[in-house]
Amino acid sequence: VRLIVRDLGASRAFYEGVIGLIVEDADEDHVWLRGLEERQHHSLVLERGEAPCCASIGFRVFGEEDIERAIHWAKTLGLQHSLVQRRYQGRTLFVVDPTGNRLELVSGMEKRDRLLQQYGLYRGVHPQRLDHVNLFAPEVQASLDLYASLGFRLTEYAEEDGPNGRIAAGWMHRKGNVHDIAFTNGTGPRLHHFCYWAPTAMNIIHLCDVMATTGYLTNMERGPGRHGISNAFFLYVRDPDGHRLEIYASDYQTMDPDHEPIRWSLRDPRRQTLWGASAPKSWFEEGSAFLETSQRPASFKADVIVAS
Amino acid sequence: VRLIVRDLGASRAFYEGVIGLIVEDADEDHVWLRGLEERQHHSLVLERGEAPCCASIGFRVFGEEDIERAIHWAKTLGLQHSLVQRRYQGRTLFVVDPTGNRLELVSGMEKRDRLLQQYGLYRGVHPQRLDHVNLFAPEVQASLDLYASLGFRLTEYAEEDGPNGRIAAGWMHRKGNVHDIAFTNGTGPRLHHFCYWAPTAMNIIHLCDVMATTGYLTNMERGPGRHGISNAFFLYVRDPDGHRLEIYASDYQTMDPDHEPIRWSLRDPRRQTLWGASAPKSWFEEGSAFLETSQRPASFKADVIVAS
Amino acid sequence: VRLIVRDLGASRAFYEGVIGLIVEDADEDHVWLRGLEERQHHSLVLERGEAPCCASIGFRVFGEEDIERAIHWAKTLGLQHSLVQRRYQGRTLFVVDPTGNRLELVSGMEKRDRLLQQYGLYRGVHPQRLDHVNLFAPEVQASLDLYASLGFRLTEYAEEDGPNGRIAAGWMHRKGNVHDIAFTNGTGPRLHHFCYWAPTAMNIIHLCDVMATTGYLTNMERGPGRHGISNAFFLYVRDPDGHRLEIYASDYQTMDPDHEPIRWSLRDPRRQTLWGASAPKSWFEEGSAFLETSQRPASFKADVIVAS
Amino acid sequence: VRLIVRDLGASRAFYEGVIGLIVEDADEDHVWLRGLEERQHHSLVLERGEAPCCASIGFRVFGEEDIERAIHWAKTLGLQHSLVQRRYQGRTLFVVDPTGNRLELVSGMEKRDRLLQQYGLYRGVHPQRLDHVNLFAPEVQASLDLYASLGFRLTEYAEEDGPNGRIAAGWMHRKGNVHDIAFTNGTGPRLHHFCYWAPTAMNIIHLCDVMATTGYLTNMERGPGRHGISNAFFLYVRDPDGHRLEIYASDYQTMDPDHEPIRWSLRDPRRQTLWGASAPKSWFEEGSAFLETSQRPASFKADVIVAS
Repeated sequence: VRLIVRDLGASRAFYEGVIGLIVEDADEDHVWLRGLEERQHHSLVLERGEAPCCASIGFRVFGEEDIERAIHWAKTLGLQHSLVQRRYQGRTLFVVDPTGNRLELVSGMEKRDRLLQQYGLYRGVHPQRLDHVNLFAPEVQASLDLYASLGFRLTEYAEEDGPNGRIAAGWMHRKGNVHDIAFTNGTGPRLHHFCYWAPTAMNIIHLCDVMATTGYLTNMERGPGRHGISNAFFLYVRDPDGHRLEIYASDYQTMDPDHEPIRWSLRDPRRQTLWGASAPKSWFEEGSAFLETSQRPASFKADVIVAS
Repeated sequence: VRLIVRDLGASRAFYEGVIGLIVEDADEDHVWLRGLEERQHHSLVLERGEAPCCASIGFRVFGEEDIERAIHWAKTLGLQHSLVQRRYQGRTLFVVDPTGNRLELVSGMEKRDRLLQQYGLYRGVHPQRLDHVNLFAPEVQASLDLYASLGFRLTEYAEEDGPNGRIAAGWMHRKGNVHDIAFTNGTGPRLHHFCYWAPTAMNIIHLCDVMATTGYLTNMERGPGRHGISNAFFLYVRDPDGHRLEIYASDYQTMDPDHEPIRWSLRDPRRQTLWGASAPKSWFEEGSAFLETSQRPASFKADVIVAS
Repeated sequence: VRLIVRDLGASRAFYEGVIGLIVEDADEDHVWLRGLEERQHHSLVLERGEAPCCASIGFRVFGEEDIERAIHWAKTLGLQHSLVQRRYQGRTLFVVDPTGNRLELVSGMEKRDRLLQQYGLYRGVHPQRLDHVNLFAPEVQASLDLYASLGFRLTEYAEEDGPNGRIAAGWMHRKGNVHDIAFTNGTGPRLHHFCYWAPTAMNIIHLCDVMATTGYLTNMERGPGRHGISNAFFLYVRDPDGHRLEIYASDYQTMDPDHEPIRWSLRDPRRQTLWGASAPKSWFEEGSAFLETSQRPASFKADVIVAS
Repeated sequence: VRLIVRDLGASRAFYEGVIGLIVEDADEDHVWLRGLEERQHHSLVLERGEAPCCASIGFRVFGEEDIERAIHWAKTLGLQHSLVQRRYQGRTLFVVDPTGNRLELVSGMEKRDRLLQQYGLYRGVHPQRLDHVNLFAPEVQASLDLYASLGFRLTEYAEEDGPNGRIAAGWMHRKGNVHDIAFTNGTGPRLHHFCYWAPTAMNIIHLCDVMATTGYLTNMERGPGRHGISNAFFLYVRDPDGHRLEIYASDYQTMDPDHEPIRWSLRDPRRQTLWGASAPKSWFEEGSAFLETSQRPASFKADVIVAS
């Protein structure tokens, strides 16, 4: 995930000092970070800029031939795309998906030392790895269809009751757990949040204690709690620019070839928080705009929005 | 703590089946329960009755001579009192304190087998012991003064700011941790809640998961969270009659002879929940009436109530 | 995993009552169990028999065409194999691999209700899912080569130092975590252990407390501790017939296409237990024989064994 | 606890950097440390010296009149004693008890800021407070009698079976939990260990992970595990000079006036570790000598030692 932030020092203090991500490299305008079990160079890049937003979200592809296939796909659909140079990364394709999300497909990345068992480096919530991104989508069904066509598989979804019930949110995976990507009904394209995995709920409770007493009380937006959807123990926090980060522990496996998606009714409050608490208004409405949103193909239409 | 409950079976299912207290004895009209580390016969008694309320709260005294001193105290202040027969208990004095709270002072109790290391009996939240009671008090300062005169020591208090700020709540102990008894501003005499100690936050999180998925979702009133006051990790639940039970893990020690009470401003939201969440209205307003509240001495006056 | 056990009641009491697996079905001669997040009918089958052993270990394949491919493979290599009828399972191929391990390849299985969020059913160590099996192998390198040819990918291995150092153990996966199958140097073919996943170390510590105080003290063989290899928090226990079960929490993800295996020296005691404790002799030597071991193809030769 | 250490920097790195104690003050020859919930200036003092040993163990007394009573006691028994000046402490009496243990009785200490809720300062195992000390005693029964006469109350003891069984170890408290002081059979006077309290087993497991991977692997002597005695989850580590520190979570309350001590047979391996693991030889034999041991009154006799 590439974020544009206004004050690189404040953002680094947050992600490194509070959350506990490892700063692998930094220069005047960038900070590259990774989780404790990640061996590739980075999973989060902070870049200095005037207007905070999300520059792109990235996915690893298997190799160079996948980049070729993606270029073909982009050309076929008439999507904005270009090969880009990214430090520490192999061949990388930037592409704007048909709904306006800015993606980077990465064919490889430099490796760094394994830190998982360098426990002396553990800080904050002991973040292990980037788990997923969640995107606002004006038409969730269309987004699910699009990403299903790219190979993602649906694990859970929230739906209005009734014969014409619309899907308000959906969770899709590639890596065998609940999701790599999710879509939440709302004005898009925007990043709703990205999420790092923590070992246990105890780490998340400790993070709450730390944030509440070190000047980050108002950055705590929602939780901690247990999601009905995904069964994860979660906390949502906002970084100094308002980008939303989820910390998340425990979900379940989904690699069975006949794994069936779970349906949740929008009327069941436990889908969001198993214990019944509701999410604040900001959680439903606020998100990180993408760097450019003017590039959506004219053919894309998003008008009706239902509450997620 | 003695509670009057309407449906003894439903209450037993809650305290034994969900919370995990040990039923030491039961008859047609009573259930006697204790926590896993408690060696005395009971710390909670459920009694069948038509109107749910709190029959009394109890304190252990050192021996028979303390009962004599308490009788003398009751006579001196003109308090309603009587020696009562309680199954499994030694000499027991019932007394209504000057603010109307119904107390029982117990000089001894039958012992039962030690269960702390019979881990096969652990259920629910693994409740270890009765930790404290919290009472609504119309005049918190008066209640604190009264219980200080009985040997309780103040550890924390919440106060309005300003030169004439009233004390809105106070926590007092005898046993060297944050409290055995606390007083919260509100219409009294009423029991606000009683509390059992759990080993860790993880047990409390599991209790939330269990309650939310076994028909007790609406019994979860507040939390889980970290109290600013006491530093405890907490959860408030309501039993089938609405009696409020707190489950609580981790506080701190207070036995230093010169231990200084901590002052909290009513303006600091972290006193209630360190992480900033506010308590629901029901938590401030609802409580368990005592069995009889008409017995307060006429001399007691409680009129002005400020928000706690 | 299919185990032959002598006393079905005692084994059920262990796996259901102590470990907390769900009994999905049972008859006079069988008990079918599954973990809390598993939606297929069973992951463990206990079958009454006179001589305790492992009847087979099973793997899910994608569908019927994989069964055909496996039959072709068995025929090509001259392996003992047959299509078998198994209750609740789809088309199932029994095959003895070239090293004598008895496998079942399952093309599908009946689904049952999702229990992951029926927290009222959680017992014991809250076992979530079958994670992996570990097999004794006389020639670990040969076993790794064989399973690599079947699509398994190596994640970690332990090796003697020096230019001619033999591989003493290896861990291989299909599902994107550390392993589905592992091979440990020793007399084979035998099952060293199978493993269920628990949510956190706290559940495992509680299981220790329960086992130590409910008559299962001598069934605790090794741990709890942290593995160097896999980084998992682990406990090894023995069932009433001596079959070895591992309980395991937390490892890491391995689905990167260029994920590099980790090498451990046999001289580093932290590979087994990060904290330095050594495993007992029984752990290295004892295991569950397979139901029939006379069926190994004559071409297979295993003679030299080094300490793992 | 006052310890003489050879390399003040190495010891500070251990207690501050690894364990997480707060350094409240330091000069060229001393470091004063405290736990996160302790409000007094220090509970551990490291002092540079050539021969590592324990200079003294300290107890807080209620006030100056207790100092006078102690002086009277020392004079009556002919004990070596003197009023000493200690930085940050009020009136302090040094006294050698009849069995040769060097004690300091402290009538008060300077207060420092409350850190319990400054979670940004939490490091290492999150040590909360000094919990107890454990002393080698040649005649445990005599030591228990002595400290009972000083007001300590017995909670648990380990005894040889049989009609003439000797007491091999005993645990005594003042503060309402399992112990402030314990005596273990062995060559004395020596400090066996001192202990800080940690919030949960999870903190202790993390400390194991940290120590094993930051150069302190050989400092881990025993555990983690669950004590039968005290029911605490424990870990024993050795500091750079070999002084033994226990980290300990969860015990139980003992303030009932008729609380009965628990007897353990020396034959029950669960008294030491509930899960059955035995302690290493070093744990039984090694300890920290007191600064001077030549001062024991000639009347004291200790000869027979049984295994504890």
